[in-house]
Formats: sequence, C-alpha cells, structure tokens
Amino acid sequence: MAKYNEIKYGRTFMGRLKFGGDLLEELSASCEQNEIRLGSIGALGAVQKARVGFYNQQAREYEFLEIDKPMEITNLTGNVSLRDGKPMVHAHITLCDSKGNAFGGHLAPGTIIFACEFIVHSYDGPDYVRDYDEDTGLPLWLI
Amino acid sequence: MAKYNEIKYGRTFMGRLKFGGDLLEELSASCEQNEIRLGSIGALGAVQKARVGFYNQQAREYEFLEIDKPMEITNLTGNVSLRDGKPMVHAHITLCDSKGNAFGGHLAPGTIIFACEFIVHSYDGPDYVRDYDEDTGLPLWLI
Amino acid sequence: MAKYNEIKYGRTFMGRLKFGGDLLEELSASCEQNEIRLGSIGALGAVQKARVGFYNQQAREYEFLEIDKPMEITNLTGNVSLRDGKPMVHAHITLCDSKGNAFGGHLAPGTIIFACEFIVHSYDGPDYVRDYDEDTGLPLWLI
Repeated sequence: MAKYNEIKYGRTFMGRLKFGGDLLEELSASCEQNEIRLGSIGALGAVQKARVGFYNQQAREYEFLEIDKPMEITNLTGNVSLRDGKPMVHAHITLCDSKGNAFGGHLAPGTIIFACEFIVHSYDGPDYVRDYDEDTGLPLWLI
Repeated sequence: MAKYNEIKYGRTFMGRLKFGGDLLEELSASCEQNEIRLGSIGALGAVQKARVGFYNQQAREYEFLEIDKPMEITNLTGNVSLRDGKPMVHAHITLCDSKGNAFGGHLAPGTIIFACEFIVHSYDGPDYVRDYDEDTGLPLWLI
Repeated sequence: MAKYNEIKYGRTFMGRLKFGGDLLEELSASCEQNEIRLGSIGALGAVQKARVGFYNQQAREYEFLEIDKPMEITNLTGNVSLRDGKPMVHAHITLCDSKGNAFGGHLAPGTIIFACEFIVHSYDGPDYVRDYDEDTGLPLWLI
C-alpha cells in the first residue's frame, strides 16, 4: 500500500535564484532560511550546465552524468523533508538543449544556474524522515 | 474559448507509493481512499519499467509503448476528475534513462514503481465529468 | 543570494483550453480574464505542433524551433507576473512524440492545442515586475 498523510498547507515563497549559483544549493538555502521542514517545489529556467543522477537499481547506487551545455529547465519537481534531523531538498529536473532534445534526472550538485524561477509551498504535518529503505536501498520516508 | 471554473482548495496528501506496484493503480487507489473527486497530482521518483500512451490524433486512438528499462521519473503531472460516475486519475509522465535521455507520454497501466513520492491536492468545485469530445475523440471535461 | 518573497495563496482555476487555439495565447487570455497578476500554472495534454524557444546564453537571444508533429504535453510549468505593466505568462513545456522521445523548451506562440488541461493558482503579494537583467539579458523579476 501507499504510505501517506494528510498535511496542511502552510506558506508559499516565490522568487528567483542567483545567476551562477549551484541550483541544488541555492534551493536548499532558500528552504533552510525559512525553516521549511516539509514542502513541495516547482521551478523553471535555464542552466549553464547540469549534473544529474541516475539510480542504478541493480547496483543500488547513483551514477552521475555531467551534461556540459546550456539548457532550458522545462521542469523541476521537488520536495523538502528531513534527513539526519535536517531539512533536505530532493528534486528531479527536466532539461532541453538547443535542438529541443530533452534530458534529465535526479538533481545533483554541479548544476549551475543561468536563471531559475521557483515556488515553494510549505506544509504542516508529521515529520517526514528519510531513512534506509530495504526494497530500494534509497533514503525514503518512514511514514 | 477556454472552459474553466474557479475551484476551492480542499485537502493535501503527501507520501510514497509501494515498491513493485503499478503506478497508475497505486495513485488511483490513494485518491479513491480519500474520496477525491477533483484534484491535482504531482510526483517524482523512479520506475522499473514504463508503459505510456501516445494519442494518434489522426486515427483517434491511443498507441502504447513499453519502455522496458529502469528510469527516473523527472515529473508526473496529473489530475483527478469523474468518468462514468467515478473518480479517474489522468496523468502524464516524463522519464529519464541511464544516459539522461528523456521519454514519456500518457501514463498507462504497466508502469512499475521503483520509488515514487507524490502530492495530491483536492479541490471543492462543480463536477468535472469526462465525456466524449467531438473535436478530439477524447474523454474531456464537460464544463 | 536568491531573491524571493512570501506570498499568499489566492484563487484556483481549473479547466481546459480550446482545440486548435494557440497554447500561449489561450493560457494568457484565461489569466487576463481573471486579472491574475501573480500566479503559477501547471498543465498537461497534447499539441498538434509546437514552437519552443531556446535562449542562446552567449548571443543573448532566443532561437526558436518548430516541432511540426503531434505530441503529448507531459508537463507545462509556468508563472504569471508583470511586464510593461501587464500580466505576462512565462511557461516552459515538455513534449513527447509517437516514439516516446521527449522535447521541449520555452513555450512560444505557434504551439497549437490539441487538448490541454490546466490549473492556475493566483497569489497575493508584492508586484513581480520583469525588467532587464544584466547577468542574463533576460527580463527577470526585480524583487
């Protein structure tokens, strides 16, 4: 069965990230500044280059890919929850290059912002704590 | 002209779907359990394999593609409305493989969850009922 | 640093766009009719053909691509803010063709709707005004 809770809508933050910054770091910092422990994130924009993860489901480890070219961010979808007692942003990203071809994966450090417009919604609810999940080897929510 | 209504924000559910389950079925079951008749859905995660539909606009029928490899879900975008008197999930999915290449389409049964984190918002409003639309041959909202 | 504000959730509109219409125009018209000055947009559906922009970060100008085939819209992510005193929709789109391959970019006029289900949330907050940004050459938010 799915594991989920009802949560309550809290606050909304909307803005843009810094040119030249690291996308995952900047998103994480914005969430931390507002003490968001549970949230959802959406964004669009462009990157100077990207680094994304693909989880090898057999080997149970992330493989990282560098996509070293400017691309549009056609979508970023993410959430905020707790890992090791601290808020953690988990986000996936879809990107398109100059020919319109799409790429993406798990957003990793090393993705450099050209421009990024984001919206974060925070929620009030029980703690969503990430911990080792036996089925996948991933840090998933113990809820 | 566009056809739309103002609707009122209702409730929010956030959680994760079961490893090995069918993505469309699990999402649908979670919405049914909460008697959601009108809603929006967002998700990210990974699949063991995918099955997606492409609507052939000329032939007016869905063609289904099996993409038989593990992929990240970089985005799932969907909604909940009524068809034949019952809540129905309609979702589209964007996926990326181990090389970062992106794929996707209309989420069909046969997409197997590796991990999936989702958020569902329900709304209060008039019934959004899907029925045959002459322009497209699709079950669209009569609103 | 990121530049952002806390904003307050306002209203929600959900519906579908007109077969054969221009996707960006129809979304913009729906937002204008409801006097939305600040908002977020999500959508899925299908297009008869697409026209997307890719911002050439070196040349500081948009290049436009026509993708002249029917595709599913697997995601549209956008926002509403002010430019030259008027509400403006900024949206990025992810599309998939009959083989499941994904494409996309900055949504430009010339993308023709087959079917499109959208949701718009409006927010109350300070004005988000787009103006020339020196770092990128783009019209970004002065906030």
